[in-house]
Amino acid sequence: MDSEMAKAPLSVIVLCILSVITGCASPNIRGTGDLGVIIERSSGSVQIVDGTDCVSLGRVTGLGDLSHASLVFSKDQRFVFVFGRDGGITKIDLLLGKVVKRVIQATNSIGGAISADGKLIAVQNYEPGGVKIFDSKSLNLISQIVAPIGATGKPSRVVGLADLPDNKFAYSLFDSNEIDIVDVKKPSDPSVTRFKNIGKSPYDALASPDGRYYIAGLYGEDGLAIVDNWNPESGARRILSGYGRGEKNLPVYKMPHLRGWSLSGELAFFPSIGHHEVIMADAHNWNQITSIKVAGQPVFVMADPSGRRVWVNFAYPDNDKVQVIDVPTRSIIATLSPGKAILHMEFTSKGDAVWLSSRDDNKVVVIDTSSLKVINELSAESPSGIFFSWRSSRIGM
Amino acid sequence: MDSEMAKAPLSVIVLCILSVITGCASPNIRGTGDLGVIIERSSGSVQIVDGTDCVSLGRVTGLGDLSHASLVFSKDQRFVFVFGRDGGITKIDLLLGKVVKRVIQATNSIGGAISADGKLIAVQNYEPGGVKIFDSKSLNLISQIVAPIGATGKPSRVVGLADLPDNKFAYSLFDSNEIDIVDVKKPSDPSVTRFKNIGKSPYDALASPDGRYYIAGLYGEDGLAIVDNWNPESGARRILSGYGRGEKNLPVYKMPHLRGWSLSGELAFFPSIGHHEVIMADAHNWNQITSIKVAGQPVFVMADPSGRRVWVNFAYPDNDKVQVIDVPTRSIIATLSPGKAILHMEFTSKGDAVWLSSRDDNKVVVIDTSSLKVINELSAESPSGIFFSWRSSRIGM
Repeated sequence: MDSEMAKAPLSVIVLCILSVITGCASPNIRGTGDLGVIIERSSGSVQIVDGTDCVSLGRVTGLGDLSHASLVFSKDQRFVFVFGRDGGITKIDLLLGKVVKRVIQATNSIGGAISADGKLIAVQNYEPGGVKIFDSKSLNLISQIVAPIGATGKPSRVVGLADLPDNKFAYSLFDSNEIDIVDVKKPSDPSVTRFKNIGKSPYDALASPDGRYYIAGLYGEDGLAIVDNWNPESGARRILSGYGRGEKNLPVYKMPHLRGWSLSGELAFFPSIGHHEVIMADAHNWNQITSIKVAGQPVFVMADPSGRRVWVNFAYPDNDKVQVIDVPTRSIIATLSPGKAILHMEFTSKGDAVWLSSRDDNKVVVIDTSSLKVINELSAESPSGIFFSWRSSRIGM
Repeated sequence: MDSEMAKAPLSVIVLCILSVITGCASPNIRGTGDLGVIIERSSGSVQIVDGTDCVSLGRVTGLGDLSHASLVFSKDQRFVFVFGRDGGITKIDLLLGKVVKRVIQATNSIGGAISADGKLIAVQNYEPGGVKIFDSKSLNLISQIVAPIGATGKPSRVVGLADLPDNKFAYSLFDSNEIDIVDVKKPSDPSVTRFKNIGKSPYDALASPDGRYYIAGLYGEDGLAIVDNWNPESGARRILSGYGRGEKNLPVYKMPHLRGWSLSGELAFFPSIGHHEVIMADAHNWNQITSIKVAGQPVFVMADPSGRRVWVNFAYPDNDKVQVIDVPTRSIIATLSPGKAILHMEFTSKGDAVWLSSRDDNKVVVIDTSSLKVINELSAESPSGIFFSWRSSRIGM
């Protein structure tokens, strides 16, 4: 026994006991199914929130440049891996509210993904290009995939990284017009299947919710490239030939993320580029069914988990508005003004509420999706992405 | 300060501190995204498991008659609500491994559901018939829905209870041939929409993954009844007119649960009744696409999360087998013999593994879905249902 401790007054020891007991009764012991993480882009921090009671649980700082940041949850939802623009990966313990490990693995990076079994983290890089695979427990580097040299004379920048079933990842090569599927069942020796000449300059991509389809948007020409993972031998093909900026090169205030698309089994909803329209297409044959006039250039076009309504936010100068589309009638049923510069929207797992980040009002707004009324507002420093832990159980998230 | 404590020797106090610290460092602090719960039907207990490391975390006993039991997870995944055949609802704290509260709310019960916002628990009863709504925090009764008098002269038995989006529940009335949709946005005053004469003796039901469709199986005649929650005014209609036991009344060893069906956006897979066949149908128009010969009378016909493969278990005497169907080729690619009396199958969230309960071998078998090899086996007492916490974020689960 420590002699200092033996001499400590009993009251001090009791205080110690109480503080330890308090530690036990603290929010450390809690379920993680309703946790959310909000990226605070200008302060390099994240806020951890309770999605049921709509309260903040704390802030974790020191995460570097989060000006274009994303994150994935560990399979058990205790941790998140935050991918910063500066090539940093930060593993955060959500229950203890602290950084577990931080590595700088590139000088310019654009996000990451977690494998289906939860054991591997993949990161897509701009500078130097390529993909790196890390162990999700230790964040030790396991292997890397060198991207082919692109038009820039350097390894291609990598975009649109997504996890697929059967422990695979898909990604696109911006500078060499390629989609790759990588099998990481042997993590130290990944096996890459390459689809070349898929179209000019893929700039983002998404996986369908079942992981069967991988779709890349093209910056250099109209249309999109799709790979059917059930029939990889048939190669990449083109869909939605009219989709893009068109011949007139309309002013585009923000190229929409493909993660802002909504795919249900039957329908796809996505932003028209440069137009004030949401496009609704048949997700089987990719024929356009209709377009819906909206209040600005749409950015995120998000179906709620039931697919019954689609929520839309907009690029500047209309980024203070959010519109709600009723899918059966294809009509706008509400135009909301929840705050300045609405950057992102995230539904709770079953869609009873939606969380909106208002960057320029430094707040996050929680709206009841049934009544469309504000339930709560939380302070946040220049919030951008909002991520709930239900993502840990979904393919491609 | 307690005078006894003041007199306690310092060593005892230090031991107390240590034990409290040990408590803090215990598995109590952990993510809940990969937790599973296994029902041990004959011993009235459940086992809590870690779905990543495939190990048991403990057992909770004293849950009554679990001969036909199910459970739902709380929204935060810290708790499960176990519904026993004896009308008991037991709320279990998965992190502390103990019963929080147990109420006996009927004398014969057949399962329950949790509302989209996680605040309400609904229970469906055989004796007395009807539905009761409880507060999920306190398990206090909030309201009850008295079922209409059926052919038995008593309130109808209720089956097929499922949560729907927008804080609604759906259920079917076995004795009065009815489907009801109940809106619980005012929990103390539920609002019921009734669909009458939907077909003879609905015996089980399921909701589609987006909650749009509610489908009830009929015991008294062939075919099924479907309600489209986007168009409730169009009423219930009939689909799959040839589905059932047929005119010959084939011997049926176990009426398959409708929760054993798999619905993707495009395809439905379900057990033929009395035949050694799995039926594959178009989930839009409900036309049969094909049937696939299998090794026995199928019970659960479960697509993995990617929809690429369908796993099938069987009624006695073929319940020691499990078959795997490859969806693109509609062929059986494996026949496994994982143990005696395989009662249930549960995939991990992204389908990298499947857990099988072998009742008569008193074990749970974990299989890698890629290699089809056994990863691990856990001892369990007559295991039946296996439930992973990803269910907390899915509609109708």
